[in-house]
Amino acid sequence: MAEPSPVMTVEELEGFMDKAFPQMHEGGRLNVIEAVGPSTARLRLRYADRNLRPGGTISGPAMMALADYAMYAVVLAHIGPVALAVTTNLNINFLRKPGPADIIAEAKLLKLGRRLAVGDVLMWQDGFDGPVAHVTSTYSIPPLRDEQGNA
Amino acid sequence: MAEPSPVMTVEELEGFMDKAFPQMHEGGRLNVIEAVGPSTARLRLRYADRNLRPGGTISGPAMMALADYAMYAVVLAHIGPVALAVTTNLNINFLRKPGPADIIAEAKLLKLGRRLAVGDVLMWQDGFDGPVAHVTSTYSIPPLRDEQGNA
Amino acid sequence: MAEPSPVMTVEELEGFMDKAFPQMHEGGRLNVIEAVGPSTARLRLRYADRNLRPGGTISGPAMMALADYAMYAVVLAHIGPVALAVTTNLNINFLRKPGPADIIAEAKLLKLGRRLAVGDVLMWQDGFDGPVAHVTSTYSIPPLRDEQGNA
Amino acid sequence: MAEPSPVMTVEELEGFMDKAFPQMHEGGRLNVIEAVGPSTARLRLRYADRNLRPGGTISGPAMMALADYAMYAVVLAHIGPVALAVTTNLNINFLRKPGPADIIAEAKLLKLGRRLAVGDVLMWQDGFDGPVAHVTSTYSIPPLRDEQGNA
Repeated sequence: MAEPSPVMTVEELEGFMDKAFPQMHEGGRLNVIEAVGPSTARLRLRYADRNLRPGGTISGPAMMALADYAMYAVVLAHIGPVALAVTTNLNINFLRKPGPADIIAEAKLLKLGRRLAVGDVLMWQDGFDGPVAHVTSTYSIPPLRDEQGNA
Repeated sequence: MAEPSPVMTVEELEGFMDKAFPQMHEGGRLNVIEAVGPSTARLRLRYADRNLRPGGTISGPAMMALADYAMYAVVLAHIGPVALAVTTNLNINFLRKPGPADIIAEAKLLKLGRRLAVGDVLMWQDGFDGPVAHVTSTYSIPPLRDEQGNA
Repeated sequence: MAEPSPVMTVEELEGFMDKAFPQMHEGGRLNVIEAVGPSTARLRLRYADRNLRPGGTISGPAMMALADYAMYAVVLAHIGPVALAVTTNLNINFLRKPGPADIIAEAKLLKLGRRLAVGDVLMWQDGFDGPVAHVTSTYSIPPLRDEQGNA
Repeated sequence: MAEPSPVMTVEELEGFMDKAFPQMHEGGRLNVIEAVGPSTARLRLRYADRNLRPGGTISGPAMMALADYAMYAVVLAHIGPVALAVTTNLNINFLRKPGPADIIAEAKLLKLGRRLAVGDVLMWQDGFDGPVAHVTSTYSIPPLRDEQGNA
């Protein structure tokens, strides 16, 4: 398959996200978009007090939020900042207890259709064995006619 | 099926959670356990700035966190506060855009096994049509021998 | 929520399925639609050699096929036999080893949108404790323009 | 991560499956194990009348059965033919309508734990664009003590 190419740069994505979700970075910028490529986006969740469980482990909800954000980033990177894409499904398997380190999330589009985008996100940590979580997720892409306000 | 009965009260659950996850309620208590019953637990996510997307909608990650917390509550309510239960899988379908109101989460155990607990969580809002999200989730329950530190 | 009412009877559904999927009943009619109601459909998978694993257990794939068929039935029952609805996602949790008996599948619509239908299916057996499996599934409903052959 | 190495060959796997699931190949051998490697197994579902929908498309249930079989193969290939591993969860996203050709299923272990094995399965067709389906699945691996008949 010819992989679709991104139509936004990392800087354009971060700029769009900062405007669209200003509250995401309250208390410090923890989710960072690091790279985009054909069908892919790579993000980093910084290890910080705010997303820890007792014991120093990054919490499940922080990983789910990272996965959702990574999918949103890879979808927008390939369709542009125009559409009101919304998550319709997210399935996560927690594989290993994360260690005290950043989590890298590699999102990859499996399908970029006219109405649905499907992808998966693999999360791992540098210096630790094996992935910590794996996610598949579906985004619904609204038809243009909806954006124009008529059927 | 004879539904299993809870072994913890709402007060005992809230007390345990406050100690185990003190950071959850930073900035205000948004996730509240309201009731437990045979195989069930009901929680409420208060509508507040902290979990909103622009436009005033409760965010997807806030709903995923609520679902995970509701499953944890219903599992602990029925096995007691002894085990280090961990989420292994969570699958969420987002059904409708939430309105500007609290979200109620009704968690129900589908299976409470020796090693795995499986349940679903239905989320809705008083005064709004139809559920906003549906979740199924699996918790792994560690064997007692693990808690004692030997195989 | 006012539950949507079915627009097809059991007889109309069975007649449509027989024409659309004649090969389904080769070797005997095992999947039977028993009832439809507001947002629901109930099916029965007969206990028979054809869908058994060694040991006399109904196989996982037979249960997944039943769930897919039950979702298809509940969707068609509520939108009519016009659209080429296709499964986009199916998530199944196997809960208990089935006993030597029929499996009942109760499908329920959680959302019937213009583009997506989401539902869950609970499977159990008369005379046995607890559900054997739980499924959530999403169907994509093609726009009318697609049926007319133009964008 | 050092990928775990298989402990069974393709021939040993096929021999075990033939004995354990003799009914699988009634009417002809459609699911074929083609290769095993570190953390992986590759299978092929032959294009044949038996698993077609009207219109010549391989059916959803046939793809779900293939995914379940592929996960079972990759798990057994790495733990050996001793354990009564059972599927606990399977999540499938149908991505594209399959063309009139065999389906290849590449299964990969994401985690091979003492109690749970998690993997994903990507399905595609030679000569067609993009994957037709993506699956994640969890197998429960019974403890040895269960096989010995005592707790």
